[in-house]
Amino acid sequence: MNYYMGIDLGGTNTKIGILDIEGNIYKSTSIKTLSSNGAQKTLERIWEASKELAKDLQIDISNIKGIGIGIPGPVIDQSIVAFFANFPWGENVNIKKMMEDISGIETKLDNDVNIIALGEAKFGAAKGSRASVTIALGTGIGGGIYIDGHLISGFNGAGGEVGHIKLVKDGRLCGCGQKGCFEAYASATGLIREATSRLIVNKNNLLYTIIEGKIDSLEAKDIFDAAKEGDEFSLSLVDYEAEYLAMGIGNILNIINPEIVVLSGGVALAGDILMNPLKEKLKKYALPVVVKDIKFVQGILGNEAGIKGSIGLFI
Amino acid sequence: MNYYMGIDLGGTNTKIGILDIEGNIYKSTSIKTLSSNGAQKTLERIWEASKELAKDLQIDISNIKGIGIGIPGPVIDQSIVAFFANFPWGENVNIKKMMEDISGIETKLDNDVNIIALGEAKFGAAKGSRASVTIALGTGIGGGIYIDGHLISGFNGAGGEVGHIKLVKDGRLCGCGQKGCFEAYASATGLIREATSRLIVNKNNLLYTIIEGKIDSLEAKDIFDAAKEGDEFSLSLVDYEAEYLAMGIGNILNIINPEIVVLSGGVALAGDILMNPLKEKLKKYALPVVVKDIKFVQGILGNEAGIKGSIGLFI
Repeated sequence: MNYYMGIDLGGTNTKIGILDIEGNIYKSTSIKTLSSNGAQKTLERIWEASKELAKDLQIDISNIKGIGIGIPGPVIDQSIVAFFANFPWGENVNIKKMMEDISGIETKLDNDVNIIALGEAKFGAAKGSRASVTIALGTGIGGGIYIDGHLISGFNGAGGEVGHIKLVKDGRLCGCGQKGCFEAYASATGLIREATSRLIVNKNNLLYTIIEGKIDSLEAKDIFDAAKEGDEFSLSLVDYEAEYLAMGIGNILNIINPEIVVLSGGVALAGDILMNPLKEKLKKYALPVVVKDIKFVQGILGNEAGIKGSIGLFI
Repeated sequence: MNYYMGIDLGGTNTKIGILDIEGNIYKSTSIKTLSSNGAQKTLERIWEASKELAKDLQIDISNIKGIGIGIPGPVIDQSIVAFFANFPWGENVNIKKMMEDISGIETKLDNDVNIIALGEAKFGAAKGSRASVTIALGTGIGGGIYIDGHLISGFNGAGGEVGHIKLVKDGRLCGCGQKGCFEAYASATGLIREATSRLIVNKNNLLYTIIEGKIDSLEAKDIFDAAKEGDEFSLSLVDYEAEYLAMGIGNILNIINPEIVVLSGGVALAGDILMNPLKEKLKKYALPVVVKDIKFVQGILGNEAGIKGSIGLFI
């Protein structure tokens, strides 16, 4: 039987799993990335841990037919990393070759959010759909576009960078240094920022009570929890979130016209209280033809999306 | 030798050409569409005119291996027209089957702007590029996305409808009925609208002189012409156009990350006076990684883009 290694390279931890081509995980582990040791040493450590996994399962290395890696940064031609979002590993690094030299096994890589999208498309919430867009709504906003079996990874590996489409001309400053980005409004951080600015002038609400006045430790979940209790202040924040989410997603729908949108990440966990106004508001931002059949679903792969998705590169 | 019929179905006129698979046009003609006669009769007339072309060239019908059609409306699976932008031909009409029944020849279709994008990608300004976006800047704004040999036509045939991404929340009313669309700002109509509103309060400029005070007959070309003469009033309008064009195109670049952008349509003819500020302003709206290698070119297929592009469906 053939097996594959799925690797989800993260800023702090790296997840590693042994899977089959159906995306079934036989065993997985997590190690510290320790990226400051450089790319070569980090990949060697990952390969050592991978071999341990195979040994535990009594799988011969010759039965490992491929290594798939999700990378925090733009990946060109499933081989070269243009730059790493948070590692000092340089530019245009051929990680494919580096890992193949270390392991002797064919290696393919792609951007980590694209990999999540691939995972949801091949094994998860969008399985069976020909065209899906997965949007990861967390600290930032990332995206991945899957059409007819392939990711739209882009000429420079930056396909699907939907978090940085501009919703407001000269708008709010984003972490990327540009202004008015989708992410600056509708990520968890964007929502917290708006909530914080409102809480400074209005403390007479359930949200303020729930967080015991500790504005600094406010999380997006607190806002959705208070809104579910009927707190008008929080409901207005959810409306704000839904509005910009609809505008950003609407723009993506008008360009791609997918069959299904998968929402993953922390903000997506809010559920109907966010999904219902989002769907309603979408009618204002996307053409009727792209909205009428659209399906919205929550991602189902969770923490396993990275290791599962990277196997999708071999299908 | 094998030949193909390329058909560019327009609101008023329909262009028909006989081509080879390399996109060379052997002979072409144009007939009135007369769409009020219905789909069946119109396609029959088009087929009669096509047969005349073949007869003139002494090409046997058995050597016509395919019919490609560009359609003003969303096309699903290169077969079914969801609706026609300006014909009363109903919804979800299987034009592929209708034309195959009439002609006995395999027929494929796609949206007319997608077909232009396919033509520029296969035979025109983006030939040789793996990922291109073609933007048609005219009365409206249309677009087509070409990646690794295929168009992104979308689940409902509305892929590439870039003219209706929203640049301004609750912004200017668009012809589509929604507000704040890219098209409402940066199409020729959008530019004329802005110019008109400014001319009402400021007539002391070269543009007003050039159009002899006839604001009703103002064309986008007049604005670019006056700007080229150094008219500050018109230069400010070009700046407005470049700004919204950069925001709209920047959003597309962040999502698709293409290798090349082809600008076609009347506004694209403005040349450097528009392209130079556009490229400069793009740095504000698109991520550095998607801007650094991007190429901007003018479409080269002109009026032949439709009939040439439709042959691309058979490559």
